[in-house]
Amino acid sequence: MIKLIVLYGTPTDPAAFDEYYMGTHVPIAQKIPGLRRFEVARIGSLDGSTPQFHLQAELYFDDNDALMSALGSPEGGAAGADVANFATGGATMLVGEVVED
Amino acid sequence: MIKLIVLYGTPTDPAAFDEYYMGTHVPIAQKIPGLRRFEVARIGSLDGSTPQFHLQAELYFDDNDALMSALGSPEGGAAGADVANFATGGATMLVGEVVED
Repeated sequence: MIKLIVLYGTPTDPAAFDEYYMGTHVPIAQKIPGLRRFEVARIGSLDGSTPQFHLQAELYFDDNDALMSALGSPEGGAAGADVANFATGGATMLVGEVVED
Repeated sequence: MIKLIVLYGTPTDPAAFDEYYMGTHVPIAQKIPGLRRFEVARIGSLDGSTPQFHLQAELYFDDNDALMSALGSPEGGAAGADVANFATGGATMLVGEVVED
């Protein structure tokens, strides 16, 4: 499995971010072809300090080809373009090749 | 579900890191009580640039109490102490509360 890991920085308005993310962005992203699993986690810290990120999304695909096809699809493009509508704290995108599960 | 997300920065010797991580650290971490799932992913970038991190580990627990008990257990302490033996690029630890799966 390959996953696209998206780490959203703390937004200017966390409540507005959460509402848009769950209500608008998730439904858009769930249309991406080949998406096998979509996990969203609210981020906190272990020691109570302010975490570096606000939210993490992980989008799982069968392999790298499926990920690349997904990102190049109209649905993938729409999801990517939508990020600019709410990610006021920035978004770090990484690719993770699952080696142990 | 709650997960401990560990993002390892690029180590000074990636091959030595990988060997120690998979051969020594994973078996130590798998003994942590209450651990429901342990996923490890090698990190790459979408655009071919050098990613900010080398490896991501996600340790899943039933809830926050289970995570806190796990971290406070002798096995959790041993896993935490072992990180200093190989994480030459540092380790960012975050807590993720899974809100969509």
